[in-house]
Amino acid sequence: MWVYEKKLLYPVEVKECNPKLARYIAEQYGGADGELAAALRYMNQRYTVPDKVIGVLNDIATEEFSHLEMLATMIYKLTKDATPEQLEEAGLGAHYVNHGHALFYENAAGVPFTTTYFQAKGDPIADLYEDIAAEEKARATYQWIIDISDDAWINDSLKFLRERENVHSLRFREAVEVLKEERDRKKIF
Amino acid sequence: MWVYEKKLLYPVEVKECNPKLARYIAEQYGGADGELAAALRYMNQRYTVPDKVIGVLNDIATEEFSHLEMLATMIYKLTKDATPEQLEEAGLGAHYVNHGHALFYENAAGVPFTTTYFQAKGDPIADLYEDIAAEEKARATYQWIIDISDDAWINDSLKFLRERENVHSLRFREAVEVLKEERDRKKIF
Amino acid sequence: MWVYEKKLLYPVEVKECNPKLARYIAEQYGGADGELAAALRYMNQRYTVPDKVIGVLNDIATEEFSHLEMLATMIYKLTKDATPEQLEEAGLGAHYVNHGHALFYENAAGVPFTTTYFQAKGDPIADLYEDIAAEEKARATYQWIIDISDDAWINDSLKFLRERENVHSLRFREAVEVLKEERDRKKIF
Amino acid sequence: MWVYEKKLLYPVEVKECNPKLARYIAEQYGGADGELAAALRYMNQRYTVPDKVIGVLNDIATEEFSHLEMLATMIYKLTKDATPEQLEEAGLGAHYVNHGHALFYENAAGVPFTTTYFQAKGDPIADLYEDIAAEEKARATYQWIIDISDDAWINDSLKFLRERENVHSLRFREAVEVLKEERDRKKIF
Amino acid sequence: MWVYEKKLLYPVEVKECNPKLARYIAEQYGGADGELAAALRYMNQRYTVPDKVIGVLNDIATEEFSHLEMLATMIYKLTKDATPEQLEEAGLGAHYVNHGHALFYENAAGVPFTTTYFQAKGDPIADLYEDIAAEEKARATYQWIIDISDDAWINDSLKFLRERENVHSLRFREAVEVLKEERDRKKIF
Amino acid sequence: MWVYEKKLLYPVEVKECNPKLARYIAEQYGGADGELAAALRYMNQRYTVPDKVIGVLNDIATEEFSHLEMLATMIYKLTKDATPEQLEEAGLGAHYVNHGHALFYENAAGVPFTTTYFQAKGDPIADLYEDIAAEEKARATYQWIIDISDDAWINDSLKFLRERENVHSLRFREAVEVLKEERDRKKIF
Repeated sequence: MWVYEKKLLYPVEVKECNPKLARYIAEQYGGADGELAAALRYMNQRYTVPDKVIGVLNDIATEEFSHLEMLATMIYKLTKDATPEQLEEAGLGAHYVNHGHALFYENAAGVPFTTTYFQAKGDPIADLYEDIAAEEKARATYQWIIDISDDAWINDSLKFLRERENVHSLRFREAVEVLKEERDRKKIF
Repeated sequence: MWVYEKKLLYPVEVKECNPKLARYIAEQYGGADGELAAALRYMNQRYTVPDKVIGVLNDIATEEFSHLEMLATMIYKLTKDATPEQLEEAGLGAHYVNHGHALFYENAAGVPFTTTYFQAKGDPIADLYEDIAAEEKARATYQWIIDISDDAWINDSLKFLRERENVHSLRFREAVEVLKEERDRKKIF
Repeated sequence: MWVYEKKLLYPVEVKECNPKLARYIAEQYGGADGELAAALRYMNQRYTVPDKVIGVLNDIATEEFSHLEMLATMIYKLTKDATPEQLEEAGLGAHYVNHGHALFYENAAGVPFTTTYFQAKGDPIADLYEDIAAEEKARATYQWIIDISDDAWINDSLKFLRERENVHSLRFREAVEVLKEERDRKKIF
Repeated sequence: MWVYEKKLLYPVEVKECNPKLARYIAEQYGGADGELAAALRYMNQRYTVPDKVIGVLNDIATEEFSHLEMLATMIYKLTKDATPEQLEEAGLGAHYVNHGHALFYENAAGVPFTTTYFQAKGDPIADLYEDIAAEEKARATYQWIIDISDDAWINDSLKFLRERENVHSLRFREAVEVLKEERDRKKIF
Repeated sequence: MWVYEKKLLYPVEVKECNPKLARYIAEQYGGADGELAAALRYMNQRYTVPDKVIGVLNDIATEEFSHLEMLATMIYKLTKDATPEQLEEAGLGAHYVNHGHALFYENAAGVPFTTTYFQAKGDPIADLYEDIAAEEKARATYQWIIDISDDAWINDSLKFLRERENVHSLRFREAVEVLKEERDRKKIF
Repeated sequence: MWVYEKKLLYPVEVKECNPKLARYIAEQYGGADGELAAALRYMNQRYTVPDKVIGVLNDIATEEFSHLEMLATMIYKLTKDATPEQLEEAGLGAHYVNHGHALFYENAAGVPFTTTYFQAKGDPIADLYEDIAAEEKARATYQWIIDISDDAWINDSLKFLRERENVHSLRFREAVEVLKEERDRKKIF
């Protein structure tokens, strides 16, 4: 079970209304390689991976939910004071007529989130490569958002999140090597 | 942020392998009115509802994630010892060739989860009616699963979960009345 | 069965070409909480609701189809004289290369309509709360379109349609109370 | 606008509970080439086809809605007295836990309806070939259902509906020839 | 089996960076009536059509894959030198944060490709009308892209592709007549 | 461009009608980790990967298309002589009423194929990990099908295909190491 603590994992500073940037950040909120996809992927896989990997998946899943909350906070703060006209100029007119000022799990193009974006195969090696790929893809998305962003404060948070993906990728790569080694050892005897 | 505690919100007793029942429980794991839809819906709406409703949404969202974990535990335990042939007899042959023994966020017919199942409008009254409807629909789903289930132990957990939906529905109905009253009071002055 | 009458339920006045507004109105034509979703939802639910609610669902379903026709007429008239360049400026370039000047059941972001937007549970209370939520969400959508619209004539039609959603919401709320009362009466005896 | 008349376009005789057949009929209720797809396709295309084809589209759209109602009546009557166990045996267990005894716009495999099944191009020749193809595909679907059905009474209704698709196909093929002739005549002068 | 030859079916000349046009061409790369849909449709249908039509489907499927490659080449060349800002101005900001400079099978609005766009019925007449419609719809899409394009060199390639669709449509219309004739001959004897 | 050669890459022996097995093989024809997903993924990524990886992607994409043809041949031969009743017993009743004896790009549960199953990030490392994961997932799927299959002849072909995924995975892992080495070398100077 989870317990909610009323604080963010890492502080989010939003200095000014910037709905255009909010739209791009939505890619990591409800897009193919975003934090929602990551959190749900690991939370679901943990039932059928080998015991020694369960902890890694559990930790990272919980962390990704907290990342998701950071992104939601950014999006909310970047858009809350925007007028409908400002949302429209930022390419969020279609979002506004559907959701008003609310957030939604959709990518930057407005395509709703689907779990077809990720996978669980019940094969530990396949699942861990899926997870490494997920982290590398998330890292790339953060990079593309940073590239297109003009807000230094938000970029600071995004760089923190991008760096976490690198750490996770490394942990999954270590895990896959441990499992392979074990598998090979079994084959020998 | 969330903190994980290594225990279930409410104990889940699985006495025997029963993949057919697992398939039906998947409706609440990855289906239209399941716990995943509920948790994500409230977690997302909480940014734009009036302050006095944020706490309710936050509490229920966190609880629904813990319900989701209970369902995952049930599905896992009901299927982990099943042979491919037993999964096939239970109507899970298609699931097996795609996911092996892993779980996945899809409904009982194997349709992947999508966030088009729910909504956030940025209008407090509309969002709360969406939430009441969500709880009533979840209650109905639990009822249909209990109807078709032949496992008394699992039914005990499902009845607990169904009852929680009733409680949530009541809380949302109270919240909507509070907001309406407030809205009407504002109109008068 | 239905019979077509060659007139609109309520007149639609379009004074000038305005493809940008047409794009937003599409949210109610083919979006999550639009008239198509509403009409199909009630038309489908009516088979399994209690007898005394069938008439309400039938009437409102039929009315929503006529609302859908009003929206189609608006969209058509607001776009028919637009050049490809004007459509492009209005954010309808992607629509144009796919559909030319034709209409399509997609939301303002161009996401195709799907029936995962709504539900039928075969439980009368759940279905009616689904319907109340639907009307409140449609009301909100009309509000957001009116907010972003700059066309007083179209807004007049949109306000008429928004008002109808309020009336429907009220009728569904009355129906749910009648059913609850009846259910409670049964429990007593 | 449409007016509802409380009768079926063509009588539907259901002699006995047969949920398995209901499941197959759902293919024409909420499937890719079913009556819902047909009705919505023509209703939407009629705004941008040449004047002389509007009437055909309008008539057929209205008729398809009445066909849809016939199918709904069949599905309802074939399933209303089935127990959850009987639904399960008929392959409708997944449907039951999601929708109870309610109907839903999904195909025989339980995949929800989407408007990506059809198209409107704003090009009269392309749209009419789309419509001919639609009718031929619907005819084929009826044939496959009749092949697999063991209910002579239902087959009578299905054959009536299949025959109507042939008539519609013919009307669309005539319309496309008229338009081509006109187009060629214009090219000459 | 297929063998790759390292050349394009027809040369593609790209004179300058033009991401906006690339976005529209994406409609034929990953949209409802594009070359991917066409190639997959015919490649899949060829197993169950009458022998004398297999060759046509096979030839056209292979050709459409080569058309797809032409489109990919255009999109790549039109965007490869664009900065993130230029992509953003062209309406490709959402694409950039998801895919960087990579291509993807989605339509001009960013909606991912799905095989619900096409069909295979296992009925030769229905399948061939589906194919004629496909070609006519593809022809229309090319026309809409040419209308909105301002690049004479690209338009030359697009006109070549549009013309091929006409040729394919004719071949499918001939094939359907051959099959109908045969069917009628069988009915007589 | 591609040239079709009228032979299979590797012979496919089908000894008897076995529609149930055909249904499972469909997972690799139109499912999340199947040959279609693989072929399209590599064919699309090759435009933006570093030059030295283009050849690998091109070769494997072309090979996967030929694998797809092998699977289509299996599915066709395993079902072509099945009666509607036999298809129904094999869980293909829903497929039959939609597609008759035709094949379709859908998974074993009947869910249509979508390109949301895969990704292209325009970041070489991320794309190659996506590809390694793809091959490992495909390998797992072949394993699950072999586990559930009772046909030794088909299993021979499936084992050949599974082995090819291992080879591809290895090639992608080598490619990722080459790129990382190069990246690190650049960082040093």
